[in-house]
Amino acid sequence: MSLKLKSITSPPSSEELSNRLKNIRRLMKEQNLDYYISFNPVNIYYLTNFAFYVHERPFILIIENEGLPKMVIPRLEKGHFESRALCELEFVVYYEFPAQKGENWNDYYQEQIRGDATVGIESELPIGIANKTPGKKIVSDIIDETRIIKTDYEIGRIYHACRVVNKGHRVLLKKCRPKVLEFALYKEVTDSMTSKIVQDIPHANFRATQTTGAVWPPSISHDPHLIPHIFKEMEEGGPHVSIVSAQVDGYGVEIERTFFLGHVPEETIKPFEVMFEARALAYSMLKPGTIMSEVDKKVRKLITEKGYGDYIIHRTGHGLGITGHEAPFLAEGYDKPLEKNMVISVEPGIYIPGIGGFRHSDTVLITEEGYQKLTKAPETLEEVTISL
Amino acid sequence: MSLKLKSITSPPSSEELSNRLKNIRRLMKEQNLDYYISFNPVNIYYLTNFAFYVHERPFILIIENEGLPKMVIPRLEKGHFESRALCELEFVVYYEFPAQKGENWNDYYQEQIRGDATVGIESELPIGIANKTPGKKIVSDIIDETRIIKTDYEIGRIYHACRVVNKGHRVLLKKCRPKVLEFALYKEVTDSMTSKIVQDIPHANFRATQTTGAVWPPSISHDPHLIPHIFKEMEEGGPHVSIVSAQVDGYGVEIERTFFLGHVPEETIKPFEVMFEARALAYSMLKPGTIMSEVDKKVRKLITEKGYGDYIIHRTGHGLGITGHEAPFLAEGYDKPLEKNMVISVEPGIYIPGIGGFRHSDTVLITEEGYQKLTKAPETLEEVTISL
Repeated sequence: MSLKLKSITSPPSSEELSNRLKNIRRLMKEQNLDYYISFNPVNIYYLTNFAFYVHERPFILIIENEGLPKMVIPRLEKGHFESRALCELEFVVYYEFPAQKGENWNDYYQEQIRGDATVGIESELPIGIANKTPGKKIVSDIIDETRIIKTDYEIGRIYHACRVVNKGHRVLLKKCRPKVLEFALYKEVTDSMTSKIVQDIPHANFRATQTTGAVWPPSISHDPHLIPHIFKEMEEGGPHVSIVSAQVDGYGVEIERTFFLGHVPEETIKPFEVMFEARALAYSMLKPGTIMSEVDKKVRKLITEKGYGDYIIHRTGHGLGITGHEAPFLAEGYDKPLEKNMVISVEPGIYIPGIGGFRHSDTVLITEEGYQKLTKAPETLEEVTISL
Repeated sequence: MSLKLKSITSPPSSEELSNRLKNIRRLMKEQNLDYYISFNPVNIYYLTNFAFYVHERPFILIIENEGLPKMVIPRLEKGHFESRALCELEFVVYYEFPAQKGENWNDYYQEQIRGDATVGIESELPIGIANKTPGKKIVSDIIDETRIIKTDYEIGRIYHACRVVNKGHRVLLKKCRPKVLEFALYKEVTDSMTSKIVQDIPHANFRATQTTGAVWPPSISHDPHLIPHIFKEMEEGGPHVSIVSAQVDGYGVEIERTFFLGHVPEETIKPFEVMFEARALAYSMLKPGTIMSEVDKKVRKLITEKGYGDYIIHRTGHGLGITGHEAPFLAEGYDKPLEKNMVISVEPGIYIPGIGGFRHSDTVLITEEGYQKLTKAPETLEEVTISL
């Protein structure tokens, strides 16, 4: 049974953000933390709606058990922060990086934290900042953990982002013909997505928006993280593998397909079918309670039994949310259960040098009863064979 | 006297990269480090020519005093790394993140470092990785330091990148008229730069390439780090402030101008002139040996004496190289001397709410005799007043 999802394009309400903060404080209490320090821009965006990239001037969020969270920022960013933040914050503003003695970021930062406190820090916190953090420090990624389960608001945003990549993928399949250049495809696909984003979300924050559309033609599709050369040409035959991904005003999703132009080479039929079967197996296990590593193990077992075990080079899937790559993981070693309102990619792959790569990926919501695919594009071998 | 610089668009030679490594090893020896660990993608790019963005799968470079540097990477990235790296490396390949017990990245990583060693680490190293690094750890940013002085090859690359932003800025000034939308300007300017990059550098790595072109019209130009709304309109009058920046196949530069459309409002003349004078003062001090904080102090003193001290909200300049923002800094608290072959921005600014922002920025090379501006655009009040 398919849920009726609603596409959301509005910014988060202050209630949405204050609920996120409450969840963090609940975990802080469970772990006896007096403070929690966040430096990861994705986590700061999650709690405040302010997006930035890390550079030499530090931005640090300090959450105490009660009271307003404090944001340590350079003076230059105060107006910017105020224009985007959708929660109440206290600003601790330092002049510049670097600055005269006594006026540096750490002088202001260290004053905010009691020396006898227990302070939770992210595993991503740079050692240079960790070393200047007072108190007893405990590495605990509680914001990252909280982000794994999506709220209804986030699901609506992700659903909208999926409509953007669906559109990009339609454009890609329409434009992708033999001899077409990678760069031309990239331009057409990303322009189509950017136009949709701008129309749907006039207030979109381009610090949290980014689009990608590319195809790995058969000569390189066995190597999925190689970046195709901009003058690479599409070829007759296949397997081509597409990647269309986007961060749409703060929400990251992807859709990827294996496809063929004109004809399907004989030697590609079996690996395509095995990928397709592995994918069906993965989907058959998607429901709350399934241990995520089990999905990966069973997928690998199936592919290995069919003779392609040496050609598996990545896990079955990963989470998506603010970024296009985050916890949870459908991977061996990740022994936690699937839960309702997780959003993950499902993308078992087979990569055979000399033949090519085989991978479909979709952005998928875990529901009470199982799952719901949020992205949509042709899937079967017949559907993904484009007549010329 | 102006140096005759040559625009370079070719990738670094293996000699260029091995000289960079030698410089790192010289500093390691001076600091008695047995190993140096690099996680910062910019530093890894500097030494290997491989560009990536940080995600959950760690990429870690391990440099020992001798032998090949080792690169800890996920299996999925091996082909990609080999296709871009232009130096000899030993790969330490882990399967996936996460992975089954004993097969995780840290299992492989920890084996590479002797437990009794002295290990240099970057201040940006995440605490989660620092905690899994064996040996006695010493925070020391020796790659960042090395990057401050540019080689002739890098200067040629930066000179080329400046030609790209010069072109972008010419397009911007031509297209910027009252009522033109921010988004339209952004598209025209970035497209013009991307086209030039693709033509000049067919092998350009788009993981290390990025273009920006935007204008802060008078209603927001007093707030230089605010991101303009995509449907913001350009206005008659001024001050408008432009930012055109790019990372061109690995080299980051910028050019920024205060300009006026049609007429110059009376109240903007004096702050423009003071900015212009402050800028001339900064340039007059640019030569090897000048203490960088002194430039910032004198600039601030001049602006303060002219009555605009309250409207200074950032330092006088910053370094550029692989990124558009890095050491060294023309800032109070940065008490090191300018040296030949540093590349910096010079951009004293005045920001008056209700009137607007006043800032020109150029990318500037420090030479034996003084300096050479690498970017070029109109400068004087007359030149930056565009007739309609």
